[in-house]
Amino acid sequence: MEFKASDIAAFLNGEIEGDGKVKVNNVSKIEEGEPGTLAFLANPKYETYLYTTEASVVLINRNLELKQKVSATLIKVDDAYQAFAALLDLYLQAKSNLKVGIEQPSFMDASVAAGKDIYLGAFAYVSKNVIIGNNVKIYPQCFIGENVTIGEGSVLFPGVKIYDNCVVGNNCIVHAGAVIGSDGFGFAPKKDGSYKKIAQIGNVILEDDVEIGANTTIDCGTMGSTIIRKGAKLDNLIQIAHNCEVGDNSVLAAQVGVAGTTKIGKNCKFGGQVGLNGHITIGDNVQLAGQTGVSNNVKDGEILLGTPAIDFKLALRASIAFKNLPQMVKDVAWLQKEVEEIKSKK
Amino acid sequence: MEFKASDIAAFLNGEIEGDGKVKVNNVSKIEEGEPGTLAFLANPKYETYLYTTEASVVLINRNLELKQKVSATLIKVDDAYQAFAALLDLYLQAKSNLKVGIEQPSFMDASVAAGKDIYLGAFAYVSKNVIIGNNVKIYPQCFIGENVTIGEGSVLFPGVKIYDNCVVGNNCIVHAGAVIGSDGFGFAPKKDGSYKKIAQIGNVILEDDVEIGANTTIDCGTMGSTIIRKGAKLDNLIQIAHNCEVGDNSVLAAQVGVAGTTKIGKNCKFGGQVGLNGHITIGDNVQLAGQTGVSNNVKDGEILLGTPAIDFKLALRASIAFKNLPQMVKDVAWLQKEVEEIKSKK
Amino acid sequence: MEFKASDIAAFLNGEIEGDGKVKVNNVSKIEEGEPGTLAFLANPKYETYLYTTEASVVLINRNLELKQKVSATLIKVDDAYQAFAALLDLYLQAKSNLKVGIEQPSFMDASVAAGKDIYLGAFAYVSKNVIIGNNVKIYPQCFIGENVTIGEGSVLFPGVKIYDNCVVGNNCIVHAGAVIGSDGFGFAPKKDGSYKKIAQIGNVILEDDVEIGANTTIDCGTMGSTIIRKGAKLDNLIQIAHNCEVGDNSVLAAQVGVAGTTKIGKNCKFGGQVGLNGHITIGDNVQLAGQTGVSNNVKDGEILLGTPAIDFKLALRASIAFKNLPQMVKDVAWLQKEVEEIKSKK
Repeated sequence: MEFKASDIAAFLNGEIEGDGKVKVNNVSKIEEGEPGTLAFLANPKYETYLYTTEASVVLINRNLELKQKVSATLIKVDDAYQAFAALLDLYLQAKSNLKVGIEQPSFMDASVAAGKDIYLGAFAYVSKNVIIGNNVKIYPQCFIGENVTIGEGSVLFPGVKIYDNCVVGNNCIVHAGAVIGSDGFGFAPKKDGSYKKIAQIGNVILEDDVEIGANTTIDCGTMGSTIIRKGAKLDNLIQIAHNCEVGDNSVLAAQVGVAGTTKIGKNCKFGGQVGLNGHITIGDNVQLAGQTGVSNNVKDGEILLGTPAIDFKLALRASIAFKNLPQMVKDVAWLQKEVEEIKSKK
Repeated sequence: MEFKASDIAAFLNGEIEGDGKVKVNNVSKIEEGEPGTLAFLANPKYETYLYTTEASVVLINRNLELKQKVSATLIKVDDAYQAFAALLDLYLQAKSNLKVGIEQPSFMDASVAAGKDIYLGAFAYVSKNVIIGNNVKIYPQCFIGENVTIGEGSVLFPGVKIYDNCVVGNNCIVHAGAVIGSDGFGFAPKKDGSYKKIAQIGNVILEDDVEIGANTTIDCGTMGSTIIRKGAKLDNLIQIAHNCEVGDNSVLAAQVGVAGTTKIGKNCKFGGQVGLNGHITIGDNVQLAGQTGVSNNVKDGEILLGTPAIDFKLALRASIAFKNLPQMVKDVAWLQKEVEEIKSKK
Repeated sequence: MEFKASDIAAFLNGEIEGDGKVKVNNVSKIEEGEPGTLAFLANPKYETYLYTTEASVVLINRNLELKQKVSATLIKVDDAYQAFAALLDLYLQAKSNLKVGIEQPSFMDASVAAGKDIYLGAFAYVSKNVIIGNNVKIYPQCFIGENVTIGEGSVLFPGVKIYDNCVVGNNCIVHAGAVIGSDGFGFAPKKDGSYKKIAQIGNVILEDDVEIGANTTIDCGTMGSTIIRKGAKLDNLIQIAHNCEVGDNSVLAAQVGVAGTTKIGKNCKFGGQVGLNGHITIGDNVQLAGQTGVSNNVKDGEILLGTPAIDFKLALRASIAFKNLPQMVKDVAWLQKEVEEIKSKK
């Protein structure tokens, strides 16, 4: 797709300075700008690149005063960063809308109810009684199990696997290789030390506006549902066990692991590699630093660090003391010796 | 599939109370019961739901004395939970047995030896000289490398990838996206700081009754085998490196990582995100708490926590002391000052 | 493929002792040797197996003096281990070269530019404007997004997913299930607590000789590139976030996680489950022990352990003191009591 500078300016209510007929077909960073691309200048510390960039079009703030001549066509807007972000969204939206139609070979059971303008990539597999909303994009090699529902506007990137009976809300994004609805990890010990599998018959519900990262796994409920609430964002390689719940707009960084039946509140933020025990409750607005391990309930608004998790600031102070532990061992030994000596002299 | 209450009662040697002709086609939790479903009541604290549930059929313990009128058809059995679990197993078994046949397009080399009643999903790929036992279910988009053997009754969920020469035992379950037999991570340093790949020519052996979680990865032996012994259960996103061994009936929670050539004994239980060094031996019946990091051999029956791993109870006590370290720093400083003062006064 | 002992000896400049016409079609460990296989003896402690092995051919060091009669055909070389490794490389190379051609059904857009002797497995999907170098092997069920370039001799194992615009260098290996170029984890908070997705328009660049493990995920740059430099080796289940850089010949063990915009130098070695904060810089030749968590910049050559990461040797000493903390708590309490007592007596 190619766009003319004057058309971009019109869309952004911007003012052109230079050749409005110049065309761009991609974007670039201003410091790496190439001919045929559009860049933006928002941060003043990058201003020197404005005078040397080879980008064909640059978005700048209306109030910027030029110090040298610029070869690129300029588009002056109120907020160059916001304008750039708006253009990107428009571009990605347009690009995504081009993906329409059923590629062959793909597999769609006759019982599937599919909405308008869906994309189904080659080698994708859609099982019985699946319901697919309007504008859903299912990339190649995805697997959709029986009775699954996928809401309007959701996108499943290549190789996503969704087990039977799961529900994906509207405008969700699931990245490549993610597995939704695999069996919960439940086994009953037998007398001989071996285990009997406990049937896992629940499902996973992703509410609207959820994003799931690449190769993340979310197990189904043993009975009932594992639920990812509206607007929650999960990064790559995360594990969510059976019957967990992640609250509205909570954000989990990569490689977090949550054991079974744990409930996470709203608007939480977890760093990477955080681990949560099963059967606990995490309040709203909780923040957990990377690698933190939580074994007990956490109240609203707490900020924790470490394994076992303690107050963030306390953990930082304790970590400094930890580093000095070898010296403290010596200090205490000296004190013991001195005190014994003092006592013996009496 | 739909079942009549009287048929269920007959199968369970149960006693009907109410309309035996009622039919159910799904199960539910008693507190969320819907018409057309079967629920069970085992835990007395849920008894109130028995009188309000909309489930059509409820399994109850024979000795339960009803306190109010119940609208659902009741089936009285010796142990309602066991009876429910038995029904579920039967249901899942029946459902799984419906999956039979070779869907197209799929790829099966002419040299493949396939047993009876197998299921091969569309877009699955079966390479040369593969042997597939009776009743094996291979879901869509699986890849089976050359010379692989898959034992009777095993199930490979969508997108499982098995490299050449691996062996899957009988009645194994491998969940979506798991990778079995990828190259071990072996490189010989060269003088210029770069690395030469060491050929990885071994395989992976899953013995009987093994379950492997979604997106888990198990590397092949450099030479020889990486072995997951009979009845071991591995959760999602686990990494097992080359030439490791996981003992009979050991259970590893999600995101555990085991470095090369480490041997894990029988009946162990590891929490999530546990990490094990390479070339160590873990005894039988060892328990490791979540996020524990183990660098050395561990004896039979030990229970460990922390990185580096120490005795579980000691680790808990040390963690409490850790939290109080900032105060202890002050206490020791005060002691030093006081002792110096006492000494100086002499 | 079958090879004659005399041909192997000629290739290795080795000296035959025994029947040169014996043929082998596989390799084995000397202690597990079977007829028709080739083994090697490098480590003197395995010498006893030389006299009992059923392997048909054994490579031995030229200077080894036999203590008993050997039934296998021997090939004497300067360095048996090196010779064995060279044979393996040759064998794997030959085997890989047999994989040539386009299997059907597969999907290759008409605009794709493909080199000579490529392999494209069934159910693989190659999008618009992809460029594929000579001798590239793309296994079944891979997905290659638009505008991707794959350099000569690279191998993508089954189910690899590469998003649009990524670049794979020459002689790279990407293992099954790895995801290259998924969206970076970027969201702008809105006033109501929900998040707006920030468009992720960058790519991933794998330079030459890079190896990526199974189910590892590498996010694209938000703008610009996430770069894995020449010769770097990444194990399984690793997470590399947007705009990171991994330096030449750095080696990352399984389950490492690196947050966004962090730069890792050359020739680093990270143990498993290491976690790195975002926006930090790690020098060259840095070594991080397993499970280490790094929040700040690290200088060239540092060796660190723990969370927060501190000097390796200091961390070991502090860990020993940590184990003794419960005792130290008692010691300090005793000291406080004693000092108070001494003071009160004055």
